[in-house]
Amino acid sequence: MIKGVLFDLDDTLYNSSEFARRARKEALKAMMDAGLHTSEEEAEKVLNRIILQKGSNYSMHFNDLVKALKGYHDPKIIATGIITYHNVKFSLLRPFPDTTSSLINLKSKGLKLGILTDGVTLKQWEKLIRLSICPFFDEVITSEEFGLGKPYPEFFQHGLNKMDLKPEEVVYVGDREDRDIIPAKSLGMKTVRIFKGKYSDNKETIADYSINSLSELPIIVEKL
Amino acid sequence: MIKGVLFDLDDTLYNSSEFARRARKEALKAMMDAGLHTSEEEAEKVLNRIILQKGSNYSMHFNDLVKALKGYHDPKIIATGIITYHNVKFSLLRPFPDTTSSLINLKSKGLKLGILTDGVTLKQWEKLIRLSICPFFDEVITSEEFGLGKPYPEFFQHGLNKMDLKPEEVVYVGDREDRDIIPAKSLGMKTVRIFKGKYSDNKETIADYSINSLSELPIIVEKL
Repeated sequence: MIKGVLFDLDDTLYNSSEFARRARKEALKAMMDAGLHTSEEEAEKVLNRIILQKGSNYSMHFNDLVKALKGYHDPKIIATGIITYHNVKFSLLRPFPDTTSSLINLKSKGLKLGILTDGVTLKQWEKLIRLSICPFFDEVITSEEFGLGKPYPEFFQHGLNKMDLKPEEVVYVGDREDRDIIPAKSLGMKTVRIFKGKYSDNKETIADYSINSLSELPIIVEKL
Repeated sequence: MIKGVLFDLDDTLYNSSEFARRARKEALKAMMDAGLHTSEEEAEKVLNRIILQKGSNYSMHFNDLVKALKGYHDPKIIATGIITYHNVKFSLLRPFPDTTSSLINLKSKGLKLGILTDGVTLKQWEKLIRLSICPFFDEVITSEEFGLGKPYPEFFQHGLNKMDLKPEEVVYVGDREDRDIIPAKSLGMKTVRIFKGKYSDNKETIADYSINSLSELPIIVEKL
């Protein structure tokens, strides 16, 4: 019997990739207005290379970008980029249209809910607070806190321990095949792949269920 | 002949102490709503002690506060504090009412303007951009960049070098006797103490001039 649901956060409960993309685009434009002489195309290409190399949680993307394009550290341009990025991201940040209603539905069934997410603890909490969805979750588990992240099964097992539930009692919901579905399934959890974010084009999945929208989730949990 | 003016930033060009105080007060209230069980008085007392010990540029005040009052790290409460602090500070941040008109007046006299400030380079630039006053300044010089801050005369000499001016050609404006006026005067700059911020009650000064408002500055520069 299903007693709880564990969720990935970014691109599962809100549109992380899309907001980050739009915020980066506006930040680049503002940096060009502030004196970064380059084309939007060139700037995007270099920034994407930096994100690929350093990861999306790296905190000095714009420092590296300005260094790469101007040859030196220009704090005015970097600070302009950071301000614009945060202003745009915070003003756009909101859950998927059906996130909150689906969470209410699951809570009304008496289920325990948790978040299992890679990332810096305070940054992930900041998103939950800004999204106004943190009261739904009994546990929020981050890779920074545990010291090991996805796709390590130890991290998923730690999530189950915190929820105080057995694998077969839990549904795991995430957008990534390699980092979410495969490890969750390997421990014996029921898995639901959600087709959102930048990996949504590849529909191949070993998940027990796949969904296009969170509103389908309560029906699946009901069946289980 | 006076050819340039060097300004301190915090509490000289905008009301740093007051905004920080109000933002901290709101942050504490929000943290109490989020589960920090304490009185506003007690929370302020502990926070002030942490700021005194670690300095105002320390980035983990709220982490330490929650640790001190709850006995453990509670990321939800810490993140709530950080979000509220930044939201309030950014929404209140603006120059003193006469800052911009005074800067325009000084620029119209053909003077070079610069900022000489203690702090993290990107944070100080962020303030200048949010205050919409950065186009006025030919040079922005920070202690982080130079590796040594106020009250070291070397830092002030570095500021003069960047401005490409001699001490007797420069007026220095700051709110602090010990960290601004004494070292600037020791190098031979003309000094103006502005009575703003948390040190404004102590009116004893060795500065050549003292002012209550930036609007008095162009008249002083004119006389010199």
